[in-house]
Amino acid sequence: MKTIGVAILGLGVVGGGTYKILTEHRDFYRRTQNVDISVESVLEINRERALALGIEESKISDNIAEVVSNPNVDIVVEVIGGVEPAKSFVLAALHSGKTVVTSNKELFCKYWYELEKVARRTNAGLYFEASCVGGVPIIRTLIDGMQANVVHSLTGIINGTTNYILTRMTREGLGFDEVLREAQALGYAEKDPTADVDGFDAAYKLSILASLAFHTKVPLEKVYREGIRGISSLDIAYGEELGYVLKLLAIGKNDGGGKVEVRVHPAFIRKDHPLASVNDSFNAVFLQGDSVGDVMLYGRGAGALPTGSAIVSDIIYAATHGEHKYATFKNTQLPEKGVRFVTDFNSRYYIRFTAHDRAGVLAKVAGVFAKYNISIVDFIQKGEDIDRAQREESGDNIPVILITHTTSEFSVRRAVSRIAALEDIVKVNSVIRVEN
Amino acid sequence: MKTIGVAILGLGVVGGGTYKILTEHRDFYRRTQNVDISVESVLEINRERALALGIEESKISDNIAEVVSNPNVDIVVEVIGGVEPAKSFVLAALHSGKTVVTSNKELFCKYWYELEKVARRTNAGLYFEASCVGGVPIIRTLIDGMQANVVHSLTGIINGTTNYILTRMTREGLGFDEVLREAQALGYAEKDPTADVDGFDAAYKLSILASLAFHTKVPLEKVYREGIRGISSLDIAYGEELGYVLKLLAIGKNDGGGKVEVRVHPAFIRKDHPLASVNDSFNAVFLQGDSVGDVMLYGRGAGALPTGSAIVSDIIYAATHGEHKYATFKNTQLPEKGVRFVTDFNSRYYIRFTAHDRAGVLAKVAGVFAKYNISIVDFIQKGEDIDRAQREESGDNIPVILITHTTSEFSVRRAVSRIAALEDIVKVNSVIRVEN
Repeated sequence: MKTIGVAILGLGVVGGGTYKILTEHRDFYRRTQNVDISVESVLEINRERALALGIEESKISDNIAEVVSNPNVDIVVEVIGGVEPAKSFVLAALHSGKTVVTSNKELFCKYWYELEKVARRTNAGLYFEASCVGGVPIIRTLIDGMQANVVHSLTGIINGTTNYILTRMTREGLGFDEVLREAQALGYAEKDPTADVDGFDAAYKLSILASLAFHTKVPLEKVYREGIRGISSLDIAYGEELGYVLKLLAIGKNDGGGKVEVRVHPAFIRKDHPLASVNDSFNAVFLQGDSVGDVMLYGRGAGALPTGSAIVSDIIYAATHGEHKYATFKNTQLPEKGVRFVTDFNSRYYIRFTAHDRAGVLAKVAGVFAKYNISIVDFIQKGEDIDRAQREESGDNIPVILITHTTSEFSVRRAVSRIAALEDIVKVNSVIRVEN
Repeated sequence: MKTIGVAILGLGVVGGGTYKILTEHRDFYRRTQNVDISVESVLEINRERALALGIEESKISDNIAEVVSNPNVDIVVEVIGGVEPAKSFVLAALHSGKTVVTSNKELFCKYWYELEKVARRTNAGLYFEASCVGGVPIIRTLIDGMQANVVHSLTGIINGTTNYILTRMTREGLGFDEVLREAQALGYAEKDPTADVDGFDAAYKLSILASLAFHTKVPLEKVYREGIRGISSLDIAYGEELGYVLKLLAIGKNDGGGKVEVRVHPAFIRKDHPLASVNDSFNAVFLQGDSVGDVMLYGRGAGALPTGSAIVSDIIYAATHGEHKYATFKNTQLPEKGVRFVTDFNSRYYIRFTAHDRAGVLAKVAGVFAKYNISIVDFIQKGEDIDRAQREESGDNIPVILITHTTSEFSVRRAVSRIAALEDIVKVNSVIRVEN
C-alpha cells in the first residue's frame, strides 16, 4: 500500500474540513483507494486551533521551511487564500518537489504560469479542483471527462453568496441591501462583501474554467465584470412576469475560430433553463460541447466539507496516478496565438426606463433603437397593472420595459445613452442582459 | 507526441459517431492533448457502410483475430452491444494486451469480473464511461472526482426512452401505449422496447454505477426492477396536483454499515427536486456524498455523438495517463464481505384505489393501514372534482388516493392485498413509490 504524507497550510474553515475528512476517512481510503494518507504537518500560527482539532503538538509548525523540508510530507495543501503569503509558501513547496493541492482561485488565476513553471521543473503535481465550485468536480470534468469536445460555451452560477442573495430577493421581493445585511449577520456574506457581490470571486473562477475549457490562458483582466449591487427587486419581479429568473452568471464563449468572450454579470435566463432552478448557495456549470451537447454539473460551491472533498479528491488523484498532468495549453501566462477576446459581445437585453406619459415618446424610443439596428421582441408599457408603491415612486411617470433581439453590447450602450437624453424620458432605470 | 492506433468494432450508430469524432478532431487532440489518434482498423461485416464513412479499404476487416493482432492498434473500441460476439471480441483484445474501451453496459455488468481478470493479467486498460449515461462523465466522477466521499445514495434518470415517454405523458396527458407507438415511429424507442420500458437497461447501468459508488460489486440480479408499462396518465395527473412528477428512477442507497439497496422503478419526486426538471431524453444522476453533499450531473444519455464523446474521452484518458486503474474493490464478481442487499426497503407510497361510495369504507381502509403500522400523510377522496371520463369509467365508484409516511415495502404489499380483498373496494388501481 502506498503511503502519502500531507501538510496542511492554514487551519481555517477549509483547512479544518480537510483535516477532518482525511482523519475520519483514513481507513476508508486504505480500503477503497489502497493508499494510506496521514496528516504529517500543519502550518498554523494559532496553536490552540490546531490542538483543538486533535493534532499532535509535534506536527504543528509555524515555519514553512520546516514543513516543506519534512521528508514525511509528499503533498502540501494550501488553503490560506489570497496572494501572499500563500504564493511564497506554494512556491517553496513546489521548489522542494512537493505536490501542491490548492483551493486558492485568486493565486491560481493570477500566478498559474509561475507556479506551473516550477512544478514542471521539479516534477511536482499542481492540483486545483477546490479553486472552483467547491466539491463539484468541474475541473476534473474539463480535463478528463469532456476533453474529447471542442467546448463552445460555459455558463455558470459560480458564486454562492450572490446566488443566495438573488434567490432571497426573488422569493421574498426584498431589496439588495436588506438581504446583504441579513446574509452578513448569518455568516453567508463577508463583512466586506466586495469579492462576492462585485463579481471578483466569479471572475477568478471564470478565468480558470475558461482557460481549461478553451485550451488557452484567459487572463483575469480579459474578464468583463459587473456585480449585483445595482439590482432592483422590481426588475426581478418584472422579469419573472416575462418568464425569466435573474442570476449572476459567469459566461465563456468560444466561436472555435479564435474569438473568445468571458464575462461575469447579472443576467436573465428563461425559467425552464436548467440553471434557473439552481437556488440558494448552490452552484452549477452548464457546458456545451460539440459532441456531447449540453452537460450540467450542480452542487455546493463552498463550505468546509464540500471544498475539503475537492481537496482530498485531488490528494487521492495525485497519489494514485502515475504521472502528473499539467495544463493542456503551452503558455499559462499568455493567451494562445490567434485568440482574440471580444468586448463587444452579443446578447439580448432587458431595458426598463421611466417616461412621461405623453403620446409619441414610445415612437421616439423605437426610432433610436431602429437607428442602431436593434429590434425589439417585447414592448411592455406598465400602465394599468403598475403597483401603487411604484406609482408613488414615479409620480405620473410610467415605467416601460422592453426586450431586444440579439444585438451588440456597444449598440445597446449607445442607444441607451441616446434614449436617456430624450426629452420625455425621466430615467433609464436598468439594462440587464438576457441569455438564451 | 504519443501516437495511438484505434480499432472500432462495429460501425453502428455509436461506432459511426466515434469514427466521426476521432477523424474530425485529430488535429484538435494533437494540439490540446499532445496525442495523435488514428483509426487503424474497423471490424465491420457491412463493407459498404465502412466505405461510406470514408474508411480506407485496407483498414476494413471482418476478422477479429486480424484486428487484435494488428501491431498498429493500441486501443480497441467495442460498440457492438449485447453479450456475444462482443464478449469474445473484447476478451480477444484484452488477451492481446490491447486496452479496451466499451459502451456495452450489459456485457460489462454481467462479465466485469472475467474482463478485468484478463485486463489485469495483460496490463491492458479497461474503460467503460460510455456504458452509463452517454456523454455525462459520471463514471469519471465516481472514480476520480467524488472518491473522497462515502457515497450514501445515487438517484438517477438513466434511461432516455422512458424519460421521453413519461415526459410526453405528463405534458400531454397521453396514455403509455399511444406515446410508445409514436416514439417507435420516430425512432426514439426500439421495435422491441422491452430493454427500455421494462427497466433492464436502467438496471444494467445501476449495477455498474452502484458498484463504483459503493465500492462493492452489485450483481445485476440484486437490482429490483419494475418498468413503466403499467403507468396511467391519470396517476401522473393526480401526482401533479399533489406536487409530484413521475420518473423512472434508478436508486442506490448505502447505509454505510453494509446495507445496500438497488432498485429501478417508477417513482414520484417533488417538483422542486433537481431531478424533476430533467425532461425528454435527458438523463441525470443525483449523488449524495458524506463530505460533498448533493451533486448532480445532467446531460444526454444516448446518441451517436454524446456516447462517442464518452468513448473518445476514455481513449484520451487511457492514452495520456501512465498507469491503468482498475475497480476500487477487490472482487468484481461477488459483493464484498459483509454487504447485504435489502429487498424490504423503505419508501413513501402513493396508493390509488376505487371504492364503492359507501360510508365506512375509508374507516376500514384506515384500519388495515393501522394494523400494519403505516401512517397516512394525505387522504384524498376525489369526489366533486373527479372528471367525467373517470366517472364514466368508474360508474358510481369513487377513486381514493392516499400518500403514506415512510414505511416498509413489505408492509405496504401486505396492506394493499388486504385492502384489495375488502368488500367495498372495487380495485386497487396503483401503488407508486414516492421518493423524498
